[in-house]
Amino acid sequence: MTPRTDRSNDEVEIRQLIDGRVKALHTKDVNAAMSPYAPDLLLFDLAPPLQYRGAAVHRKNLEEWFLTFGGPVGYEIRDLNITAGDDVAFCHSLNRISGARTDGTETDVWVRATVCVRKIGGKWTITHEHVSVPFEMRPPFKALLDLKP
Amino acid sequence: MTPRTDRSNDEVEIRQLIDGRVKALHTKDVNAAMSPYAPDLLLFDLAPPLQYRGAAVHRKNLEEWFLTFGGPVGYEIRDLNITAGDDVAFCHSLNRISGARTDGTETDVWVRATVCVRKIGGKWTITHEHVSVPFEMRPPFKALLDLKP
Repeated sequence: MTPRTDRSNDEVEIRQLIDGRVKALHTKDVNAAMSPYAPDLLLFDLAPPLQYRGAAVHRKNLEEWFLTFGGPVGYEIRDLNITAGDDVAFCHSLNRISGARTDGTETDVWVRATVCVRKIGGKWTITHEHVSVPFEMRPPFKALLDLKP
Repeated sequence: MTPRTDRSNDEVEIRQLIDGRVKALHTKDVNAAMSPYAPDLLLFDLAPPLQYRGAAVHRKNLEEWFLTFGGPVGYEIRDLNITAGDDVAFCHSLNRISGARTDGTETDVWVRATVCVRKIGGKWTITHEHVSVPFEMRPPFKALLDLKP
């Protein structure tokens, strides 16, 4: 195969990783959702703190987050762009999180996601992820949860 | 040179790119600050919208942002981590932005930054950047501007 073909394969594999995660979030399958992450993952998440490290912490947060949804988690990915090198790659997309929460509220928010992966032992693995929304540039500096792409 | 040495060189070059940007922000040098960006940069910024594309928009935003600082822009980088492949790389860090604003306020905020680069024509070039803070998970969903690493 030519290097070009290899790269196309890498993009396909990374797209499958992203698609698999969407399915796992939708069905609140913690094991499947965690499978693409490296044990020493470094995460910049929607909630504080500024950063946290480790798949174990992410798993715990995800389990708690799933419990706040009464039914399935709506997770739609738009504008997914993948830049793949030989063993390092990054993706960015706009992701819509939606669904009925157990506290009676309805979530429907678009977030920005950057997912950074390394090929480790032949498998694309998420080592860094950054998810956020922008915020208003004047007091009280509210996070902007109603923006649409 | 072995591939290993090449990668070390790549990390040095990417570190220089990040360092150069810090100096450019500090002295409010728009041309120097913009030099590492690809023309079709895709940015997830602190301020809305969710995303914007193009170095021209980023330059205009940067020029306007520089005008809001009375003196130099304080820009400190902590926990910089670089993952470099042959021609694709990503970095993440915690960045402290500080300084006196022309409206009389004092800025001092830690943000999370993910910088994604590609080697284009032999030069590491920023094609995607994601900068954010987390937000409070309860109403009024305030952006958390006082977190420390």
